[in-house]
Amino acid sequence: MPTLSILSHDADEYKRLIEEARLPGLEIVTEPAQSDIVLGEPKRIGDTLPQLLQLKWAQSIYAGVEPLVDPAQRRDYALTNARGVFGASMSEYVFAYLLFHEQKILQRIHAQQSMQWQRQEPGLLRGKTIGLLGVGSIGAHLAGTAKHFGMLVRGYTRGSETSTQVDGYYHAEDLLKFVEGLDYLVSILPRTKETDKIVDAKLLDALPSHAVFINVGRGNAVDESALVGALHEGKLAAAILDVFEKEPLPEGHPFWTTPNLYMTFHTSAISYPEDITKLFIENYQLYIEGKPLKYVVDFERGY
Amino acid sequence: MPTLSILSHDADEYKRLIEEARLPGLEIVTEPAQSDIVLGEPKRIGDTLPQLLQLKWAQSIYAGVEPLVDPAQRRDYALTNARGVFGASMSEYVFAYLLFHEQKILQRIHAQQSMQWQRQEPGLLRGKTIGLLGVGSIGAHLAGTAKHFGMLVRGYTRGSETSTQVDGYYHAEDLLKFVEGLDYLVSILPRTKETDKIVDAKLLDALPSHAVFINVGRGNAVDESALVGALHEGKLAAAILDVFEKEPLPEGHPFWTTPNLYMTFHTSAISYPEDITKLFIENYQLYIEGKPLKYVVDFERGY
Repeated sequence: MPTLSILSHDADEYKRLIEEARLPGLEIVTEPAQSDIVLGEPKRIGDTLPQLLQLKWAQSIYAGVEPLVDPAQRRDYALTNARGVFGASMSEYVFAYLLFHEQKILQRIHAQQSMQWQRQEPGLLRGKTIGLLGVGSIGAHLAGTAKHFGMLVRGYTRGSETSTQVDGYYHAEDLLKFVEGLDYLVSILPRTKETDKIVDAKLLDALPSHAVFINVGRGNAVDESALVGALHEGKLAAAILDVFEKEPLPEGHPFWTTPNLYMTFHTSAISYPEDITKLFIENYQLYIEGKPLKYVVDFERGY
Repeated sequence: MPTLSILSHDADEYKRLIEEARLPGLEIVTEPAQSDIVLGEPKRIGDTLPQLLQLKWAQSIYAGVEPLVDPAQRRDYALTNARGVFGASMSEYVFAYLLFHEQKILQRIHAQQSMQWQRQEPGLLRGKTIGLLGVGSIGAHLAGTAKHFGMLVRGYTRGSETSTQVDGYYHAEDLLKFVEGLDYLVSILPRTKETDKIVDAKLLDALPSHAVFINVGRGNAVDESALVGALHEGKLAAAILDVFEKEPLPEGHPFWTTPNLYMTFHTSAISYPEDITKLFIENYQLYIEGKPLKYVVDFERGY
């Protein structure tokens, strides 16, 4: 009989939702050592791994599973992550800032504060080009919203070209060609060895100076001091950062005071129990039927 | 032979675009009195009307044509306005502010300024309800963007129910039922006698206190002192106003300093010569074929 431990700060909510679903044969237990299935935050699952002697399947409620793909950790179970559920909220986050920039909302607020009737024309997303660094399910959703607003969409991926909303794909050594002429660059990359500091001084130099960079993937993708330099020198118009090399961002980090840098606090993709429970139910059906699970993480690749 | 006068501050650009189109038989003249067609801003056309002795057709480059539907003006010509071209830019404007509000962008900026790592969850448009006061071509476009973001859409109209993206229509005396429970109320109403102060104290009382009001239609739709009062009393969360009873907004007007009031300066729908020229070309073909023009304004109705 399958037994589930819920290792999450939202455990009560998950318990309620999963009990409501009356999954056949599933027992929710409070003692992790007794469970063959766990659901929760990667960090909590990682901390509990040594006790999970019967573990067969772990469902992460986040997309990023760094604490579980660390080579020092065991890999003798199926790890699935949350996928396909963050696209809509990520899209709201990213397009909030794209439109905030085009509509010159801060300038308008300042004009109002100084009681100036200032008829400065806003910019438009229509006709502009967005580049997506990484096109998984989140990137595909962003591409859909970009097309809704009449934008051109470029995608940079390892090799996959799955989203049909992307107008042109770039791979491997075409990175600088990919960023050339972009109005917006959005990184949605996971933390892997290959993505380390992919946004470096060279890439920032290749971006037009009117471009805006947004990072909603992982902080490791950015050479932070190169980005600070680029913003100070006006080599790009703005950066919006939701993720950082170290979180929370340390006191005294130059990002706090870099001009045209807008930071948010790892809030671009909120994990909603309703969404994650749907994924879990879907996978639980496959699990009890002995079929391959969905959203399986490749421990080597890291996502 | 049809002759055209261009009465616009963008006359050079319009001349270039129309000449490029090589419209059959059309001559562009510099003397308005000699033209049977005029293209331009309603105000300029209105000021020139007494000289336009041969006028048969006037194409406005704006949607609002108040200076031309004034009962004191002559009405012995076909007046067409700009329609179907503002939806995309209006949508960028409106959703910029909806997302700005949900994402708590100002709060995040303040947290950054005080160097606080503040993990406050953003709100989402998904699942929220937007009410459109007036559903013409702009309202229909806004409805499409709202559906893209997973919102529920209500429309309040005189009687038409043309947009299929609207989930529910309201008419006539159902106004207070229409605003009940809304998260966002957007007025796209034209200036007519019927729209005068439609957004009054009673309507603002019926709106939930967490709601946000946006006016991109005309300033006459709002009882300005009722709105100031509602914002001071916290009866609504915010107002974003692009249009006003009197523009530019007079010095000393309470709007300049009302809390949670964001004003822009009649910039939500920019008239792009490329877009308007397409409309003009379309109508010119109908004109020379003697067919009914598109986007004809009803002088009595006012739009």
